[in-house]
Amino acid sequence: MITVLKNGVTKQQRDQLIEWFEEQGLGVHISEGQYQTVLGLIGDTSRIDEELVASLEMVDSVKRISEPFKKANRKFHPENTVIRVGGVTFGDGSLSLIAGPCSVESEEQILDVAARVKEAGAGMLRGGAFKPRTSPYDFQGLGAEGIRLLEKAKEATGLPIVTEIMSAQTLPLFENVDVIQVGARNMQNFELLKELGKLNKPILLKRGLANTLKELLMSAEYIMAGGNEQVILCERGIRTYETYTRNTLDLSAIPALRELTHLPIVVDPSHATGIARMVEPMALAAVAAGADGLLIEVHNNPKKALCDGAQSLTPEQFTHTAQKARRVYEALRQ
Amino acid sequence: MITVLKNGVTKQQRDQLIEWFEEQGLGVHISEGQYQTVLGLIGDTSRIDEELVASLEMVDSVKRISEPFKKANRKFHPENTVIRVGGVTFGDGSLSLIAGPCSVESEEQILDVAARVKEAGAGMLRGGAFKPRTSPYDFQGLGAEGIRLLEKAKEATGLPIVTEIMSAQTLPLFENVDVIQVGARNMQNFELLKELGKLNKPILLKRGLANTLKELLMSAEYIMAGGNEQVILCERGIRTYETYTRNTLDLSAIPALRELTHLPIVVDPSHATGIARMVEPMALAAVAAGADGLLIEVHNNPKKALCDGAQSLTPEQFTHTAQKARRVYEALRQ
Amino acid sequence: MITVLKNGVTKQQRDQLIEWFEEQGLGVHISEGQYQTVLGLIGDTSRIDEELVASLEMVDSVKRISEPFKKANRKFHPENTVIRVGGVTFGDGSLSLIAGPCSVESEEQILDVAARVKEAGAGMLRGGAFKPRTSPYDFQGLGAEGIRLLEKAKEATGLPIVTEIMSAQTLPLFENVDVIQVGARNMQNFELLKELGKLNKPILLKRGLANTLKELLMSAEYIMAGGNEQVILCERGIRTYETYTRNTLDLSAIPALRELTHLPIVVDPSHATGIARMVEPMALAAVAAGADGLLIEVHNNPKKALCDGAQSLTPEQFTHTAQKARRVYEALRQ
Amino acid sequence: MITVLKNGVTKQQRDQLIEWFEEQGLGVHISEGQYQTVLGLIGDTSRIDEELVASLEMVDSVKRISEPFKKANRKFHPENTVIRVGGVTFGDGSLSLIAGPCSVESEEQILDVAARVKEAGAGMLRGGAFKPRTSPYDFQGLGAEGIRLLEKAKEATGLPIVTEIMSAQTLPLFENVDVIQVGARNMQNFELLKELGKLNKPILLKRGLANTLKELLMSAEYIMAGGNEQVILCERGIRTYETYTRNTLDLSAIPALRELTHLPIVVDPSHATGIARMVEPMALAAVAAGADGLLIEVHNNPKKALCDGAQSLTPEQFTHTAQKARRVYEALRQ
Repeated sequence: MITVLKNGVTKQQRDQLIEWFEEQGLGVHISEGQYQTVLGLIGDTSRIDEELVASLEMVDSVKRISEPFKKANRKFHPENTVIRVGGVTFGDGSLSLIAGPCSVESEEQILDVAARVKEAGAGMLRGGAFKPRTSPYDFQGLGAEGIRLLEKAKEATGLPIVTEIMSAQTLPLFENVDVIQVGARNMQNFELLKELGKLNKPILLKRGLANTLKELLMSAEYIMAGGNEQVILCERGIRTYETYTRNTLDLSAIPALRELTHLPIVVDPSHATGIARMVEPMALAAVAAGADGLLIEVHNNPKKALCDGAQSLTPEQFTHTAQKARRVYEALRQ
Repeated sequence: MITVLKNGVTKQQRDQLIEWFEEQGLGVHISEGQYQTVLGLIGDTSRIDEELVASLEMVDSVKRISEPFKKANRKFHPENTVIRVGGVTFGDGSLSLIAGPCSVESEEQILDVAARVKEAGAGMLRGGAFKPRTSPYDFQGLGAEGIRLLEKAKEATGLPIVTEIMSAQTLPLFENVDVIQVGARNMQNFELLKELGKLNKPILLKRGLANTLKELLMSAEYIMAGGNEQVILCERGIRTYETYTRNTLDLSAIPALRELTHLPIVVDPSHATGIARMVEPMALAAVAAGADGLLIEVHNNPKKALCDGAQSLTPEQFTHTAQKARRVYEALRQ
Repeated sequence: MITVLKNGVTKQQRDQLIEWFEEQGLGVHISEGQYQTVLGLIGDTSRIDEELVASLEMVDSVKRISEPFKKANRKFHPENTVIRVGGVTFGDGSLSLIAGPCSVESEEQILDVAARVKEAGAGMLRGGAFKPRTSPYDFQGLGAEGIRLLEKAKEATGLPIVTEIMSAQTLPLFENVDVIQVGARNMQNFELLKELGKLNKPILLKRGLANTLKELLMSAEYIMAGGNEQVILCERGIRTYETYTRNTLDLSAIPALRELTHLPIVVDPSHATGIARMVEPMALAAVAAGADGLLIEVHNNPKKALCDGAQSLTPEQFTHTAQKARRVYEALRQ
Repeated sequence: MITVLKNGVTKQQRDQLIEWFEEQGLGVHISEGQYQTVLGLIGDTSRIDEELVASLEMVDSVKRISEPFKKANRKFHPENTVIRVGGVTFGDGSLSLIAGPCSVESEEQILDVAARVKEAGAGMLRGGAFKPRTSPYDFQGLGAEGIRLLEKAKEATGLPIVTEIMSAQTLPLFENVDVIQVGARNMQNFELLKELGKLNKPILLKRGLANTLKELLMSAEYIMAGGNEQVILCERGIRTYETYTRNTLDLSAIPALRELTHLPIVVDPSHATGIARMVEPMALAAVAAGADGLLIEVHNNPKKALCDGAQSLTPEQFTHTAQKARRVYEALRQ
């Protein structure tokens, strides 16, 4: 960590700061310039709060040299983490498809969608039981019953299931869930992350609406620090000034995270764009950029297509998208 | 709500959509233009999911005419909500100051800060017991012990206390806390909001890092829908591309929220800027823009000023800022 | 255009507004709700200033139903615009590669790069002669001499050339330039756009750093309104809070623009990421998302690779990227 | 400047980079850590292109210690720059008001507004003659005739005038204009800035929609590097994800710029919010935050108030706002 001092800082102030750094177990290298003094900190700076140092009166700015995440850091774990769930694998260079409806609505619905996405090549079933909704007046999901229906679909098709958790209090319900999803709005719900860190079960961690890649990795670190190192990262669009799409899908997150971490990376083009007809091009782009998997919304109910339709593909559209995704994937493996 | 259909939508598709709207209990007014058809929905549209309709294949775009928040809406409750806590009042046109340290660290510290901010005119004491930290390796707060120390400071000074909650599971610890704070990262932790909606205690709800004013009001609505209508809104800076300050304080939120809602509005200039020397100018600006109160970090420990110092003022600086804030407030009441 | 009036607007105010709309040649349809009145405007609203209406005291909000761009609008011109420059074509479903150095530096450099990118399959040569630099102390480009050298490279290789203009005053120098580029910082330099509208020469218009897709199309409309309908749009990354990449490449712009306009769309992954090792994955993603072409920086000078290297690929890397891009393109045409 | 090298960089690569830095006249201090090597550059690094170095394959990241702006830098010019125009002064601790219509429309209009804003305490008249409009179909301003009318108003009232330039080609028309405004969209129109750098006339430079404070200062540096050191900076709102206001007024820019530069700072609350009823609270907030002046839109034409009304105050409203602004200003000088 590099700390740049302000012009005009007294020797006494400087020494006080150096003393404090030394108390934290760090070595300090001093370099005096014409206008500013730079302190280079040597040792394990991951416990130093960068924002705190940056906000000291005497400090001009701070720069971390080594990232504050360790367990998630590729520097210390050069090999990819490979996560296996049922027949699907994330992180070994294969392309895995996770598909299913936005919300679980009925037994008939989820069994039908499950069968059809399996046929189209999906390796895992997704479906919302607990739904984070901006409005308290919107449908909040079937809850425990939704999870029960997902388990039925798993039984029927053999597909492992992934569904979102919104509160640690509901954890017992997730016993037979294969992968637990943390939604964008809970990416920095640190109490929840700590609870998930105690499990021995893969976690699908979605990037928050306005979180940086490094913050995403710090949230993964929360889970990993607790002992659970099976984290799958998910890019799902960030909030920008552009309103044509619901969010802006940041596909450069794929090569960027690939450098920074050994964890697998999947992309959710459905939530990112919020527009069914944009799901396919963005899914293909994600594969071309090197994603380990895709998370795609698929609905099945033509009669209720109005309210299902949203950002979801029909099973036919999903089949088409999956084939094209496969072709892009193969083209790049030649 | 206005729904604009795409060019080329068939009559059958259109009728299907209209039928669905009617099933939701809405009247539909059809207006056909040269290139597009516009459906005007009449009735209570607050239960209609705007994003869902917007993402239908046949829909070009959607516009809400009436806001989806009701209990928080000034249109239906023209009078200001006034919240009284101990001797402080929010929403009656007065200016209330909430001050205290970022984290509660020791009995000595919190008793000293409490006494000094009271003397300087603060009407409520703040202090963090449970701390949301980006890194799992950073200090996470004293927890239950921190709340106990705040209670001691309350006893000693008579100041009501406000502190942040991070998980509904810790609610029993907050029994003697006067105002419960929901931090920016939990603004859309809907399960937590629902729990707080069951209390009879004021909630200080901070705007999320990348949340719109309308989303802030929808989160207030979550609490209010549960029966707890005592919500104080807090602007604390939003995330933008500018990195000179930690966040960008959006003071236009004050007149904007004033129009939209009857709830009181306070501003936290400490977290917004993350720079102690910017707290005063932004605090004064917030008062000039019409804030009902300020939330300001104050530390007391000159010896440990290094790590406390951060974005906090000393008691002397706070006294100075409070006096100036008072002067701006008085100047605008003449 | 839909105009929603505020609650409490008097009949007199409303009639005054309706009268004003009628003076602009529009029909007005009035729809009164319980809390608000909605005015539907019928006719050519492209000359109505949306922001102005939105900011009237009596107006709650405004929504455009038909876009304010006409010549660029796919609704009125359903067929793709196809632009041919030398042997390259944009907009006919083919994939065209534009490559070359960030700055033209010497005859030797540009002739060498030109030959090598041609060999690797590029159909057009790019190179900066006038360089927009944030700092007045940075190298500003070779200017007129740079254009002369590009012309030499064109002569030697047969590749058409594209280079950036920064001021209408230099237009005479661009006589033999095949495509004139407008950089992101000048996307709303309306005086320049008007001048380019008078030419009979394709314009490559880059999206501004913080401009919406609709603003990009309005800038294209400036050029087209002047009579020059040969505009190629270029997505090159937008400014967001994320700082890991220089900008955030918004690939959803491709399917979005495809819907909105008939103009060809190219992508510049070099400037978007600012990191050479990210150019290939983002180039491939752009092709998978349906781009008509790519604009890629290629440098040739291994000795000076330090300062050239930047966001540029070597000719070898470009050859590799071009081959993979071609493979993705072919995979999606099967 | 600090350059952090990637893990695994060879000694040869490193030496090549060091050699290149030395060729630029810099000293290089090498500090080797366990995982990374840090190069400290000593000397005048303002000519080093930070982005270029950051994008080299071997470089992990770069941090500037000294800012790349010099003439605008308070470090080298600790005293405030004071700019006097007619009877108004910017930068000496006083509060100066600039007011007038969005567009100059007629002689009658501008003479009337000028007289009324003068009476209300404005020290300078503003009015648009050349208008940057997003749409080519919107009113583009009266141009030369508009400037002529502003000159008449100046003659009649004695108020100095400020108006926007959009192209260097129109410079001769600005001979009698007292302050030339560069709009947000042209903040990085470097060719225009260079031309303005040759004048001996104050320039009012508006911050671009998505430009950082440091970029604003680099644009000021362009003008100052040419010899014209009379630059007034203007904060006018930045583009964020929030759409309730047209832009988000960043008032923390005032204390931030105050630290970084000696140039005067004014605020434009009219364009920032785009909503007349928000102009007053944001104007007062700007004064409380320490602005040297305000730029406020005032219209006079009750009959055409519909289209004028926009973000403008009436003269009566402006009088009221000016009085309150004065009161806040006085309260803080006690």
